[in-house]
Amino acid sequence: MNINCFKKGGLICLLAWLMLHTTNAHAAEKILQASKYIQSSDADVAMGLYRLFEEAKKNNYTKIEFQKGTYHVYSDHAFEKYCFISNHDSGPRKIAFSILGFKNLEIDGGGAEFIMHGLVIPVAIENSTNITIRNLFFNFDRPTHSELKVAAVDDKNNTIDFEIGNQYPYEIRNGQLIFLKYGYEHNLENAVYWDAEKRAVAYQSRLLTPINKILQKSVVSNIDSEKLLYPIDTNSPAYKFRGTENSLVAQQLKPGLVRISGIKETLPKPGWILVAKGLNGNNRLAPGVRLLDSENILVNNVTVHHASGMGLIAEGCTNVTLDAFRVVPKAGDGRMLSTNADATHFVGCRGKVLMQNCKFENQLDDATNIHGTYLEVTDISKKTVGARIGHFQQVNYNFGRPGDSVVAVNPKVDAKPLAKLTIKKVEVINPRYYQITFNEDVPQQVLKGFYLENIQAYPEVEIRNCEIINNRARGLLISTPKKVIIENNVISSMMAGVQCPNEFTFWYESGYVKDLTIRNNKFLDNTYGNPKPSPVINVLAASEKGNYIHDRIVIENNTFLNYSSCILLAEHVKDLKFINNTITYSGNYPISTEAPVISMVGVGEADIRNNKYDSRFTKFIASNASAKTIKNDNNESIEKGR
Amino acid sequence: MNINCFKKGGLICLLAWLMLHTTNAHAAEKILQASKYIQSSDADVAMGLYRLFEEAKKNNYTKIEFQKGTYHVYSDHAFEKYCFISNHDSGPRKIAFSILGFKNLEIDGGGAEFIMHGLVIPVAIENSTNITIRNLFFNFDRPTHSELKVAAVDDKNNTIDFEIGNQYPYEIRNGQLIFLKYGYEHNLENAVYWDAEKRAVAYQSRLLTPINKILQKSVVSNIDSEKLLYPIDTNSPAYKFRGTENSLVAQQLKPGLVRISGIKETLPKPGWILVAKGLNGNNRLAPGVRLLDSENILVNNVTVHHASGMGLIAEGCTNVTLDAFRVVPKAGDGRMLSTNADATHFVGCRGKVLMQNCKFENQLDDATNIHGTYLEVTDISKKTVGARIGHFQQVNYNFGRPGDSVVAVNPKVDAKPLAKLTIKKVEVINPRYYQITFNEDVPQQVLKGFYLENIQAYPEVEIRNCEIINNRARGLLISTPKKVIIENNVISSMMAGVQCPNEFTFWYESGYVKDLTIRNNKFLDNTYGNPKPSPVINVLAASEKGNYIHDRIVIENNTFLNYSSCILLAEHVKDLKFINNTITYSGNYPISTEAPVISMVGVGEADIRNNKYDSRFTKFIASNASAKTIKNDNNESIEKGR
Repeated sequence: MNINCFKKGGLICLLAWLMLHTTNAHAAEKILQASKYIQSSDADVAMGLYRLFEEAKKNNYTKIEFQKGTYHVYSDHAFEKYCFISNHDSGPRKIAFSILGFKNLEIDGGGAEFIMHGLVIPVAIENSTNITIRNLFFNFDRPTHSELKVAAVDDKNNTIDFEIGNQYPYEIRNGQLIFLKYGYEHNLENAVYWDAEKRAVAYQSRLLTPINKILQKSVVSNIDSEKLLYPIDTNSPAYKFRGTENSLVAQQLKPGLVRISGIKETLPKPGWILVAKGLNGNNRLAPGVRLLDSENILVNNVTVHHASGMGLIAEGCTNVTLDAFRVVPKAGDGRMLSTNADATHFVGCRGKVLMQNCKFENQLDDATNIHGTYLEVTDISKKTVGARIGHFQQVNYNFGRPGDSVVAVNPKVDAKPLAKLTIKKVEVINPRYYQITFNEDVPQQVLKGFYLENIQAYPEVEIRNCEIINNRARGLLISTPKKVIIENNVISSMMAGVQCPNEFTFWYESGYVKDLTIRNNKFLDNTYGNPKPSPVINVLAASEKGNYIHDRIVIENNTFLNYSSCILLAEHVKDLKFINNTITYSGNYPISTEAPVISMVGVGEADIRNNKYDSRFTKFIASNASAKTIKNDNNESIEKGR
Repeated sequence: MNINCFKKGGLICLLAWLMLHTTNAHAAEKILQASKYIQSSDADVAMGLYRLFEEAKKNNYTKIEFQKGTYHVYSDHAFEKYCFISNHDSGPRKIAFSILGFKNLEIDGGGAEFIMHGLVIPVAIENSTNITIRNLFFNFDRPTHSELKVAAVDDKNNTIDFEIGNQYPYEIRNGQLIFLKYGYEHNLENAVYWDAEKRAVAYQSRLLTPINKILQKSVVSNIDSEKLLYPIDTNSPAYKFRGTENSLVAQQLKPGLVRISGIKETLPKPGWILVAKGLNGNNRLAPGVRLLDSENILVNNVTVHHASGMGLIAEGCTNVTLDAFRVVPKAGDGRMLSTNADATHFVGCRGKVLMQNCKFENQLDDATNIHGTYLEVTDISKKTVGARIGHFQQVNYNFGRPGDSVVAVNPKVDAKPLAKLTIKKVEVINPRYYQITFNEDVPQQVLKGFYLENIQAYPEVEIRNCEIINNRARGLLISTPKKVIIENNVISSMMAGVQCPNEFTFWYESGYVKDLTIRNNKFLDNTYGNPKPSPVINVLAASEKGNYIHDRIVIENNTFLNYSSCILLAEHVKDLKFINNTITYSGNYPISTEAPVISMVGVGEADIRNNKYDSRFTKFIASNASAKTIKNDNNESIEKGR
């Protein structure tokens, strides 16, 4: 299988279809049976997997076939390499399936299940081409997060008693509740309540969390003696907690029952589940599938039941297809959560990202997030720019290749390109500081503090027939100027169902949309975890100069079954269409009718036609909506819903 | 300079002499002036140093000349690579002088001083041959440890008030005193008192520390659910503090003055300095000079004023000469400590280690430690052995090369070799787990739990004309079966002056001596920091079978000016000579006369002649000394001392 049908310039890409239909068609198939190295009766198959992939590479096998069964992978004897993984915590990581530098390999798991013991990345595909992985299940013996059941609350003393099950060893150390994992620990940071009956994030859960408020300033002295020449990343683990204290104190009532006092927030309901993963910087450690700098990847019928991090994260990859990729808790595991971060995530990818027939359920962050990464200009010398990685989870990010087009933007104004340059070379002096040399002199208008955006490292996107339910945070985050189609999906997330973010301050994630179509989707309740109703489709941008940041957005033939009237916010969109959508009250949460269905800021042409909306949602288009022209035609209030 | 005069079989090695005298003699010298890239007026020379070494390598320069001056290196823009460093904490590390893969390079610093800002390893020499580095000073802007002055003690309430100077930013967070460093933090773990007047570790300081006793067991629950297949390293940072609590609570009296309560130990004297470096696993981060897998290295007239870790650590190097290498605090810095670990350290080195004219002062650990590293056998399959790294600070250790002779030993019995094997290949599956294939089948007598020792990875050693004073821990730790000469040194350490350890339980450091000569040295007070007097020369070994572990040890013509009578312990030494030594009371600490001057366990022939010892030290040879034969001849008690 040596297919590379992606063509520069965005011509029709047949890759996904071909990859799905041709794997049995080629003649020179050379099959390696995994049973040569591993048996499901083995106590630990880590070393066997290492030898298996070693042989597959050495002898150019094109296919590895596994036998159905349950296999255990212990981190102790697993292969390790240092992994910088975007939006994760970097470090030396164990890997079960190490697909590094392969060409033309299909892995057929035959329905096998692999259970990780310790921090193991189940699958890493790096610097590889034409790789298919299918028919596999991945899980972790012990979850890397922890789940606590609210046993009782005391609103006089502001305490909560938590039941902690046997899957979650813990200790109380100097008054702090600490969960003991294989090779690491975590505390009650980054905790979210889940409604056990709905198996979804609890209604308005953001009012109740984080439970560990960092309210009191601790005593800090002598700090003036710091002599810093460069900015520090105050979000990074080394700095984030300086000058702060934990408000919580833990006390064991009996084994498995712990009282937490010092709660400053609204108390939860007994029976709810608190899911905690601990401090940022040490809670996204081993994603399910890691794809790096690879091309033509198909993940088909693969299930990630749990991972410390994302279900799948792809960086710098060209043409990635996820077909029937599932991030879901396993029935019988007794866990509320699947992965403890996004189900999927794509950074700086190219070609096409296709997701179809996927299921993303109960993960602790977005279903997907597709974006680029800004670098901050720190110094300029003729053709060379010194540039800084903004977020500690993007260190060592592969910013671009020679020949890539890069633009400079002024983040204090907006995301509009101010100068275009072509990469000659990128030198990673250290993972935070790069020197990038361009073919051209850097124009004088580009200043220290400007951001660099690689405008070639964005993919086309199709997301269809996917089910996204009961997760924390958003459904789909889309930040790519290439063509995007989102259709026939079911989406229900505690925040926005679809969001096009545009921000410069925290994540340094670049991107906007130029051609986004959202059609024939069913948006079940979204945004219910927010303190106040917010837009189900949330298109954000800022521009001091009133520029259009997003180009064309079409939202068509969708059904919104929502507890609140707040359906769309569109900021700085040039060409917005909202057509043939049906919006009704879901009946699942208290109705909220205050917000208008559609809000607009700095929009160009708005074409809003043939929509039907619940008659209780009295404001259709916000009275203060700002757009150059608004076509508001044949939109009908209907008596429907519960 | 392409000298490789080391000859297998231990013939006379002229290397050091040649390296010292020939650097100006060769014709094809190609000199690069550092001033092309860095000026002492630069705010930060990190990037300039990177470009300097880049050019030196690319264009095969043989010499780099620096201009005298003070240069600042900020970690922010320094080159980074992941460093596994033996007896240090591994991780991504910044490097100022990155001498990686060089051949034939002399660096003449011209007396320049380089000051690190943040965690920067000043010098790393890896995979290089024939490298000289001279005439340089290295320091850190802010110390990586912290020093606190005892302002007052309250023996009723068991509290200590500490003054904390401006070099040491700190905060009190949830009752814990935390020192804020550039990119990391530390607490009061690993703290030692220094006597400010003597500028040495305080008398019997080990009675007073560690100040943070970990006495209370914290509440641990659900721990039974852990399913472990392999042993965990309970000394590693992830496990060490499980089930424990800190006894200390900190309270700010005023900025720069902090009261610590919860002290369980004897209180210190006001005016003493507490030196703390924080938890193991996060306190040996950036050694001064790091040498790895290199050959023919000369470090000449180089001073390390401070480092987070050792002054110099060499791993797997052949022929290392330190001439006038100094690890000393800088006058005017107002610091008690130089480096926060050993001054020097040699692991798995070969050829000759020569140290002369060196000064090792006020560092927080031994002056040197020369040893190999054991691996633990975990599984055996014909010619291949699975082996585990025992200590978390030895992960990824380069155990041996194809062709090296390895022996297996049974650590439950003693260090005697039981089987000899020859390495075919070493595979590092992960930094803790190796697979080692031998030319031969592994004999049946070798069992799981046995240790592997590389008997070729040991150096000859000469240490002469060095001054070792006022440091914590030991002077010289010697564990190499090759010829060792220690002569004309001055040694005064808080524990043993010279120690030959032999242990299997904690450090996994291999080695013993076969031919050790200690002559013409001046041992000023040693062992004064211990709770009780202990041997100045401490030769340790255990053998269930009564085997000789050490071979020949000659201790001759040395002067011992000591507070205590406890001078020599020799365990399991085949051939011991203690001749012409003079032992007198120093007068610097309360006299201790209880211990015999010489104790022996399981010694073969002991030749003890012509020694003079203070008449107050009434026991010369221990009454229970066990040796095959003891020649006790012409040893004279003298009326001398204070």
